[in-house]
Amino acid sequence: MNIALLGHGTIGSGVYELINLNKGKFSGNFTDIENRRSSPVITKVLERDASKDLGDTVGKVVTDPKEILEDDSIGLVVALMGGMDFEYEMIKACLKAKKHVVTANKAVISEYFQELLNLAEENGVVLRYEASVGGGIPIIGSLKEEMKINRVTEIKGILNGTTNFILSKMTEEGADFADTLALAQSIGFAEADPTADVEGYDVSRKLSILSSMAYESIIRDEDVYKRGMTDVRAVDIEMTGSLGYTIKYLGHSILEENDLYTTVEPVLFKEASIMSNVNSEFNIISITGDIIGELQFYGKGAGKDATANAVVGDVLYILNMDADRKPESLRLGRNLNKAGTSIFKGKYYLRANLVKQEDLDRVLAAVETVADRKTVIVNEDKVFVVTSVIAADRFNEMTELLQKEVPEIFYARIYE
Amino acid sequence: MNIALLGHGTIGSGVYELINLNKGKFSGNFTDIENRRSSPVITKVLERDASKDLGDTVGKVVTDPKEILEDDSIGLVVALMGGMDFEYEMIKACLKAKKHVVTANKAVISEYFQELLNLAEENGVVLRYEASVGGGIPIIGSLKEEMKINRVTEIKGILNGTTNFILSKMTEEGADFADTLALAQSIGFAEADPTADVEGYDVSRKLSILSSMAYESIIRDEDVYKRGMTDVRAVDIEMTGSLGYTIKYLGHSILEENDLYTTVEPVLFKEASIMSNVNSEFNIISITGDIIGELQFYGKGAGKDATANAVVGDVLYILNMDADRKPESLRLGRNLNKAGTSIFKGKYYLRANLVKQEDLDRVLAAVETVADRKTVIVNEDKVFVVTSVIAADRFNEMTELLQKEVPEIFYARIYE
Repeated sequence: MNIALLGHGTIGSGVYELINLNKGKFSGNFTDIENRRSSPVITKVLERDASKDLGDTVGKVVTDPKEILEDDSIGLVVALMGGMDFEYEMIKACLKAKKHVVTANKAVISEYFQELLNLAEENGVVLRYEASVGGGIPIIGSLKEEMKINRVTEIKGILNGTTNFILSKMTEEGADFADTLALAQSIGFAEADPTADVEGYDVSRKLSILSSMAYESIIRDEDVYKRGMTDVRAVDIEMTGSLGYTIKYLGHSILEENDLYTTVEPVLFKEASIMSNVNSEFNIISITGDIIGELQFYGKGAGKDATANAVVGDVLYILNMDADRKPESLRLGRNLNKAGTSIFKGKYYLRANLVKQEDLDRVLAAVETVADRKTVIVNEDKVFVVTSVIAADRFNEMTELLQKEVPEIFYARIYE
Repeated sequence: MNIALLGHGTIGSGVYELINLNKGKFSGNFTDIENRRSSPVITKVLERDASKDLGDTVGKVVTDPKEILEDDSIGLVVALMGGMDFEYEMIKACLKAKKHVVTANKAVISEYFQELLNLAEENGVVLRYEASVGGGIPIIGSLKEEMKINRVTEIKGILNGTTNFILSKMTEEGADFADTLALAQSIGFAEADPTADVEGYDVSRKLSILSSMAYESIIRDEDVYKRGMTDVRAVDIEMTGSLGYTIKYLGHSILEENDLYTTVEPVLFKEASIMSNVNSEFNIISITGDIIGELQFYGKGAGKDATANAVVGDVLYILNMDADRKPESLRLGRNLNKAGTSIFKGKYYLRANLVKQEDLDRVLAAVETVADRKTVIVNEDKVFVVTSVIAADRFNEMTELLQKEVPEIFYARIYE
């Protein structure tokens, strides 16, 4: 079976090296298998630019999708263009042409999960997407395995390398958000338009894919409560650090009977905790099952080789699959009540910049509407508050009103 | 295919509940498979005591191994007796009788790894042992997966729940070793004879299984350098804590070209680190591959349900296996040079109790033979030293000599 690659960008070139250029042990998986003298290779690479040079290798650059869709020798397509519409159309076309598909595209998977799985099943082929969540961390496969025995009730994780890099760097250097984002952009750790990362869409897509699988129900990106992490400032890093906490950007979902709770937001973990010590481009994902308890998986959430490793793992799965055996289909039909964020409870840290005379009173009065007790530190033109335990929905409502009067605030729930 | 269970102890009863008593989702894995109307069950349970009561369930207690070995309806045996000789003989007999075997017995696997794998292959059956390392953590399967693409070069982990519970409890409560061991024994977290746990044999067996797989060479328990953790005292917890460190009991192996380095010993991690925050019965295992980088897996390293989960995962693998397909065999024939501990380098913490007048001078003179620089704290009848960076083999040699003169010492390398 020949393989086609859509996109020879960062991850695509990593996949090309692993499969075609003998980096890693890919080809070693085939020497023992009868009837297969040599390992499968990528014969065609779809690129917009025909002049893309693959060197003196077996793969050939093509610019017309038909060259892949109508090539019967190609049984498996690795879709790594990124973006939304074109990749979505290509994945659909490949599945309809009865070609297996492996992708790392979390946007396409989270948006069209059910449709694409159905399409694969109807056409007797397989869709794999391990690299769409957690980069190199083998979370999709592990979640499927644990679900054979467990009812999964909770997922939480640091799921975005860009924002974790920014927060780690700010913590390490005491730098401010804007400068650190600019640094991340300059070294290729953040996109020119960082919205998807810093506003939580990327985390939300990953959380929605894992949650859909775990809770057996389609959970869409827009079902997930999300709050960006662009309001965090050096002064927050400093103050929360002096309180013994580290700021992390967390995705978290909980299933309780038929009620689903989700959130993506900046939170605080104790410095002496596992989550606080997941730094830079590393990710961590925690899943909790009723039999196994909590499992956590840590690894590189981004980067060429680690992500390519996950993609090629999927490729190997398909190549080693028994042709006569139908892959297990995912159950996604459960009807869940999207129940908001009320299950997430904790003390809150809040910082507000005081501009007008009356701002301090406004902040304290607003916090008092939801918190029984609070600790207050006033420092020049800022007030810092740590509250007693409050449910997330109540605190979010309060801050929404408060922000109309005192716009520059940052807040985060404390995980203890 | 019927299943037999050897041993209805803690893990055995957990496995029985998952497979026979509809705890968890085990039976749900079979409703979709054609030609299989109902899920496989445990029909026989081998126990020494015939009066063992399984209640009104489908399983029957037997005391004669022949009842299982000669029962052709039994295709899979789950070996959870523990101990060494009897379980080893039973596993061999089952494989020879062409029955698949699943076991959690790390002693048997690490001692007879190659022989048992060969026996399984010769008889066309499968031997699985996921629960032998890391309890509920899916490390054996994950390691096999990553090895399809990666050359693994390093493994390290907190691999023993008993000693991690003791160290966590000592750290939490400032309690001493003997009291905490007694507490662990009283609540079933430590054996009456704790030697295997506190002297490192248990960690060494687990490390040798993972290292054998990862480095494709039989690494035996006795190849692993090990040092017990019975010398740690409340005063060490207090002093290392005040220096910002946490004491953990670590297994660590590194492969560099053909040189294998292994160690099992107490070490110090910074309080703000992932390793320091793996507490009580939880385990963590880190593997490093040349493509994927570092992956870490965290979960319950012991306990009825989590370990039973891992065992039943192996059972499911075998039940869902394609009968015509030979399982991939492990490569274990590589010839490695057992190169000791010289690759492990770091600052050292050392505490010595001063009994005789000349003890302080002896300790400082001994440390000076290996350390360029050192920080010394003398406190009543004890001396605490933190050294510059030293290779493990040099420090170990020095302390061996020193202990002849100043017997009560504790030392640990610092991981930074």
